[in-house]
Amino acid sequence: MSHGKQFTLFTTSGGAPNGWKVAIVLEELGLVYEPIYLDFYKAEQKGPEHTKYNPNGRIPTLIDHANNDFVVWESNAIISYLIDKYDTEHKISVTKFEEKITQLQWLFFQASGQGPYFGQLGFFLFHTQEKLPSVIERYKNEIIRVFGVLDSVLSKQKWLVGGKCTVADLVFVTYNEAALFMGKSIEYDFDLENNFPAVHKWHTAILSRPAVKNVLAVRDSFATAAN
Amino acid sequence: MSHGKQFTLFTTSGGAPNGWKVAIVLEELGLVYEPIYLDFYKAEQKGPEHTKYNPNGRIPTLIDHANNDFVVWESNAIISYLIDKYDTEHKISVTKFEEKITQLQWLFFQASGQGPYFGQLGFFLFHTQEKLPSVIERYKNEIIRVFGVLDSVLSKQKWLVGGKCTVADLVFVTYNEAALFMGKSIEYDFDLENNFPAVHKWHTAILSRPAVKNVLAVRDSFATAAN
Repeated sequence: MSHGKQFTLFTTSGGAPNGWKVAIVLEELGLVYEPIYLDFYKAEQKGPEHTKYNPNGRIPTLIDHANNDFVVWESNAIISYLIDKYDTEHKISVTKFEEKITQLQWLFFQASGQGPYFGQLGFFLFHTQEKLPSVIERYKNEIIRVFGVLDSVLSKQKWLVGGKCTVADLVFVTYNEAALFMGKSIEYDFDLENNFPAVHKWHTAILSRPAVKNVLAVRDSFATAAN
Repeated sequence: MSHGKQFTLFTTSGGAPNGWKVAIVLEELGLVYEPIYLDFYKAEQKGPEHTKYNPNGRIPTLIDHANNDFVVWESNAIISYLIDKYDTEHKISVTKFEEKITQLQWLFFQASGQGPYFGQLGFFLFHTQEKLPSVIERYKNEIIRVFGVLDSVLSKQKWLVGGKCTVADLVFVTYNEAALFMGKSIEYDFDLENNFPAVHKWHTAILSRPAVKNVLAVRDSFATAAN
């Protein structure tokens, strides 16, 4: 790849949260990358130019040209790679072994407890012809449950681990944004600020970070161009 | 806790795959633990005796009494902790940095791509009154998709990373077992041995390991006792 930048990131210009999650971490660390925006309408993520790197056929996928073109996929594995190798000053990561495990625990909670369930709501809201109220209800309730778990922790501490903003916090922001966006299409039985005040405060603090702002502005510029 | 063993593991005696996954890794490493089997019918996993350690209220949760009662939850974070701290001879883990990232990548694929989707099929098969064919179809197809991804890799190499059986492989076994079990209740449009021969061979090799056999025998003894 002849773009001359350190990384290639296979991602999408659409709203899918996982690519933007990695972009935020790259931006936080000041790492320079070339985004390749795959067209989901053409199923390019399932095409050979992507699956030769990532057999799962889902974005994001990262190639590090400064490390023998090392390839890694799964957004939170990519993020773990980036902090382990490039966040040597621990700008957005912890240092102590046990804290690193707790940081990883939150990455797994995000990847298995937040992402898939929030994603199922999106699927059953926007991508099925048949509307299934009981299924939509199930995933709405799961969003409320996840916000409740986060609020129970964040009402006692400002950040999830290490007393500072780390990747453990950053990985939640794009799916939280997606949940709030979906709230415009359906009636939630809650309001983030009133029902989960600690999550609201935390989410607002994450959104105010320059790296997060920059990446979400890029995302929003695509959405505006498409309308 | 006065049981005198190094670890306490909050888990369940039922079929939920995530607790058995951690038990397999503890058994592989010869680590001694006291299992606390929470009763899901009484929602004990959501009760205060568990949530004081794990705000997510889902099993498993591990306490390491030999490390200042360090607490970690999320099954694959627990497994990462166990190999980083206790698999010093790399019996079931890789050593090189890049291979460790690839190992972690498969842990994230299992946690986000296999577990939740296989789990949704179980939910809509066994835990809803209303039967929703289109939803069951969606998750059946997702199982087929995941087996396809694994087969595309395992048809070219025996193990997922490092040329040997590691946690990257072991974490898949209990959900694969669950998928095959669910196949007794519904018609799959595939047969593992014929359609995904590399996955079948790999899964059979994992099942033949003494540690895996021992743990699944304990699991099955509970199922027999309950019938």
